[in-house]
Amino acid sequence: MKPSFITLDGIDGAGKSTNLAVIRSWFERRGLPVLFTREPGGTPVGEALREILLNPATKAGLRTETLMMFAARQQHIEDVIRPALADGVHVVSDRFTDATFAYQGGGRGVPLADIEVLEQWVQGGFRPDLTILLDVPLEVSMQRIGQTREKDRFEQEQAGFFTRVREVYLQRAAAAPQRYAVVDGNRPLKAVRDGIEKVLDGYFGFVQD
Amino acid sequence: MKPSFITLDGIDGAGKSTNLAVIRSWFERRGLPVLFTREPGGTPVGEALREILLNPATKAGLRTETLMMFAARQQHIEDVIRPALADGVHVVSDRFTDATFAYQGGGRGVPLADIEVLEQWVQGGFRPDLTILLDVPLEVSMQRIGQTREKDRFEQEQAGFFTRVREVYLQRAAAAPQRYAVVDGNRPLKAVRDGIEKVLDGYFGFVQD
Repeated sequence: MKPSFITLDGIDGAGKSTNLAVIRSWFERRGLPVLFTREPGGTPVGEALREILLNPATKAGLRTETLMMFAARQQHIEDVIRPALADGVHVVSDRFTDATFAYQGGGRGVPLADIEVLEQWVQGGFRPDLTILLDVPLEVSMQRIGQTREKDRFEQEQAGFFTRVREVYLQRAAAAPQRYAVVDGNRPLKAVRDGIEKVLDGYFGFVQD
Repeated sequence: MKPSFITLDGIDGAGKSTNLAVIRSWFERRGLPVLFTREPGGTPVGEALREILLNPATKAGLRTETLMMFAARQQHIEDVIRPALADGVHVVSDRFTDATFAYQGGGRGVPLADIEVLEQWVQGGFRPDLTILLDVPLEVSMQRIGQTREKDRFEQEQAGFFTRVREVYLQRAAAAPQRYAVVDGNRPLKAVRDGIEKVLDGYFGFVQD
């Protein structure tokens, strides 16, 4: 079996953490070798870049931030993802380039065409084989990340931000349905888990239990 | 007078430090407002990126490094260069994008076309108005940076490296002679100084003293 590169993505509050555990136990049960990773990918460069981005004192601008994201991704691909795939190990990444399109692009306004240029520069034709997009409506996302009070102006801006982020995720999934599986995260945990397992079974050609 | 963006570039050992002082005193004498800067530009992001690049433990790959260079440059332009020009102040930068073409491109093999993509991404049409390229032959460069012994294999590789770096600088200058002034740095200090002052006088339209 050719090893696959799988990514899990979605807006904050979509349930990524919970469902990463679902994916992990699916791989264990199927006995397939897999490496779990996440951006910026646990490379020393990626971690150092992440620290800069999280430190408000460094005041990285939006385009600078976007370049740094792709710098971390370049190293992540070179040092972690490609070597694992070359060793015959499947790779599951918690977020990948879709998140840059959604957050820096949709959310904050970097033109999507500019992000495509960097995607091409760093990845060439390298893309995930399968992207599981966990989707929830805005209200669910806001509730889960703790925005339950009546919205003040900042929170309304946040609502606009996450609406745009979600739209870009959904547009990307709609534009390449052969690569994306959109899983409705606004259901009871068990239903979401079944949905993800069905996607993986289907992708890997297993008959469902 | 429209403020100008001037860069000083050249291979190691070409005499940049000495001749920055020449440029500085020229601006003082002419009474023109000027800001001296250098890559990565003294922005907090740039300095943080520089630390990562200088730390061998982080092991940034060549393409990662190139992206980080342009991330620092993006911030340098946004926070330092453009604001100064907008305030009517000339800007002189110790190295700029030419160095990325020469070192990461010519020296280490990133395709020049790939560097052009990032240059366009970060700078759009923004280019130096004048680039003073200090040029010295390889032997002079090696001697000045302390490579005086008989060359071992590593030093021979270094010689090949600096030969390629110098070639790219000279090719770029030859391709855009209206923007570049190549100054022969392999002369007595006074002759080099006179050469640089002549370039600046000519560029700014002063009659030479």
